[in-house]
Amino acid sequence: METDIFEKRASLLLRDVRYRERTVDLVVADDGTIAAIGPGAGHDHEYDHAIEGKGRVLLPGLANTHTHAAMTLLRGYADDMLLQPWLAERIWPLEAHLQADDVYWGTRLACLEMVRTGTVGFNDMYFFMESAARAVDEAGLRAVLCYGFIDLGDAEKREHECRATEALADHVSRLANPRITTAVGPHAVYTVSADGLAWCAEFARERQLGVHVHLAETRTEVDDAISTTGKRSVSSLDEAGLLGSRTVAAHGCWLDEDECRLLAARGATVSHNPASNMKLATGRAMPYPALRAAGARVALGTDGCASNNNLDLFEEMKIAALLQKFAWNDPTALPAHEVLALATENAHAALGWAGGRIEVGAPADLVLLEIATPCNTPLHHAVSNAVYACSGNAVTTTICDGRVLMHERFIPGEDEVLEGARTASRSLIDRASAGTDS
Amino acid sequence: METDIFEKRASLLLRDVRYRERTVDLVVADDGTIAAIGPGAGHDHEYDHAIEGKGRVLLPGLANTHTHAAMTLLRGYADDMLLQPWLAERIWPLEAHLQADDVYWGTRLACLEMVRTGTVGFNDMYFFMESAARAVDEAGLRAVLCYGFIDLGDAEKREHECRATEALADHVSRLANPRITTAVGPHAVYTVSADGLAWCAEFARERQLGVHVHLAETRTEVDDAISTTGKRSVSSLDEAGLLGSRTVAAHGCWLDEDECRLLAARGATVSHNPASNMKLATGRAMPYPALRAAGARVALGTDGCASNNNLDLFEEMKIAALLQKFAWNDPTALPAHEVLALATENAHAALGWAGGRIEVGAPADLVLLEIATPCNTPLHHAVSNAVYACSGNAVTTTICDGRVLMHERFIPGEDEVLEGARTASRSLIDRASAGTDS
Repeated sequence: METDIFEKRASLLLRDVRYRERTVDLVVADDGTIAAIGPGAGHDHEYDHAIEGKGRVLLPGLANTHTHAAMTLLRGYADDMLLQPWLAERIWPLEAHLQADDVYWGTRLACLEMVRTGTVGFNDMYFFMESAARAVDEAGLRAVLCYGFIDLGDAEKREHECRATEALADHVSRLANPRITTAVGPHAVYTVSADGLAWCAEFARERQLGVHVHLAETRTEVDDAISTTGKRSVSSLDEAGLLGSRTVAAHGCWLDEDECRLLAARGATVSHNPASNMKLATGRAMPYPALRAAGARVALGTDGCASNNNLDLFEEMKIAALLQKFAWNDPTALPAHEVLALATENAHAALGWAGGRIEVGAPADLVLLEIATPCNTPLHHAVSNAVYACSGNAVTTTICDGRVLMHERFIPGEDEVLEGARTASRSLIDRASAGTDS
Repeated sequence: METDIFEKRASLLLRDVRYRERTVDLVVADDGTIAAIGPGAGHDHEYDHAIEGKGRVLLPGLANTHTHAAMTLLRGYADDMLLQPWLAERIWPLEAHLQADDVYWGTRLACLEMVRTGTVGFNDMYFFMESAARAVDEAGLRAVLCYGFIDLGDAEKREHECRATEALADHVSRLANPRITTAVGPHAVYTVSADGLAWCAEFARERQLGVHVHLAETRTEVDDAISTTGKRSVSSLDEAGLLGSRTVAAHGCWLDEDECRLLAARGATVSHNPASNMKLATGRAMPYPALRAAGARVALGTDGCASNNNLDLFEEMKIAALLQKFAWNDPTALPAHEVLALATENAHAALGWAGGRIEVGAPADLVLLEIATPCNTPLHHAVSNAVYACSGNAVTTTICDGRVLMHERFIPGEDEVLEGARTASRSLIDRASAGTDS
């Protein structure tokens, strides 16, 4: 394999790939967009590198609309616990010792896992996000990054969170990487005061940023919101001015039908995170049929690796389709082609990106899947196999914004990232055990 | 890599594998059993082949307690439909054209997929089972094979099913392959008459065979059983004499607590098939907490590829743990170490095998998982990563009964199996479309 294919963006020919039951060529221009697609389309174009697509299924690159990427470092650290002790005894004590370098390596590991499993971009909420930005920049993915804004009603803390949010927006502006943008990240209505929510809405308006928020994940959240404010969570977000076409609200398990309609009216996106919701036993599945009936946009997310425990959107597509069928007692709910849209076109649109669909002029965010493997044999329907039979391990090639990030399952620098993440994770546990931060 | 490692059973050293948070050697004797395990255990033994286990996690080989292996040929053929039209319009018309050769290739493909994803044996119910036996024999796996006995209350059909069941038992006896046994396969209480059930019980007793049956999969089954016989499904099986320690009952979604207790008292195993149950929207999860409280043995199964759509027990372990937590609103339900037992020791015991655990004298049914990959990075807890983060694609080496079936992800003859299965699947569809069986 030629390895200079990874070095920089160049024009590409994907020759004889299988796309929507046909065999086509796809040409990527050196500006990173799709220049042509169709049978024999390669004959009319020049290109720097040719990629053999025979025996490969072509799909749009997937996008993950809710995660905490650096939490890969906590993968498998604590499972099978009740939510409160899990957070209070295991997750928060470790997070209290997090440093910028941990977030860098955790995000590098997350990017590596996403590239390997066909995800080209993600919507991230965490801390030390300048380090996350560096990791994404180096990995070559797209990301919308936000600082998790939590004031717990404390004015001094709120001030700190506002400054941190501004600093990240300024930092990402200066990076001037067109693949990386920032969003405002009010954590949730139960962790951010009304003043905090209002500041976030105003800042998003002023800087023209998206919003990334947790919403109606647990029944407790909804019940507490009603008892303390007299309102359900969606009303609080709407009154604060946080619901718009660039809002991504994660989970939405306990949305009622009025809330589904209001989210649809505002053009907001609900990010469905079925594996996390099931693992943490949120008690109800996100009401996809009601959101669909209301015309709301739904996209897919994995949540962080502490509650999933991977970032494989192929697996998440299957779990989403299974959960929706099971929860609403309807085997026709969320069919394969719809769940693929949740992970591709809906997800890209939610994050303000032009990808997630394969057409001339769109960014070349593309993945190839191996056909000569059990999960794609036989190949009656490529979308069914992608959703129900394959995991992200069927992906052989991942292209983001016209740049090849993985080819024939090879990712330059993979070993260094695995080693860096292992070291960071060990050091974090050691610091937390010793109660030091040297 | 030396390829003669695949040729025949020989003594093996697995050097420096990670097992239960330690680094150990494991020695396999040339009779296919585990001869030694422990740090440095390799120093005291001779061996024909050494396998480098550094950077690998060792687990028992998994066993699949309910599938219809040859249905791999129908993978992705029809999804997202209501049960009755799915069966009547899509699955049965295709199955009506099935021939012995299709079952051979479908089972070869299933075995390939299982070897690739760390499964060393399975419990199979289908037709043309002599062809399935040939496929299993060649693939080197273990299997308990049964003919799906369906008489629909018709005496003539019953006679045919009895003869088919006898013929398979005789055929498998003559094969004299210690890895392959047969069971009696009364399909379900709603497809087999009381006389048919009684014959099955008597035949199983006479030949000392196990029983493989579908049980309480849908509410309709239970409601219909009560309205036609006045009894729930478990009572019918028990009165027919079909419940014993060698009975594997698949699904069990609608079992009530009395039924859980009776199954436990009889020593029967319930095979949990969460992906299939969710995809077909059975309406209720198998009541694992009640079965566990009753002391019943539960094991894991994938069901056939028409309703899953793969045979990856690693994925199934995760879905089982997620579904049980979600269904019973308890994040502590079915923790990682228990779900691993469902796929290993419980499954092997259910099928009458001595494997599924790693100890001296047990059959060497073993898998190695790659550590230097995102799903095993970091490696806080190997069992958590195996269940929640990895799919079967993390498996690098699969050993069944001391014989190496896959090593460093290489399986001899894989391409021929994929091509044979593709051809068989195409031919089946063509025959069904044309309405011919040439």
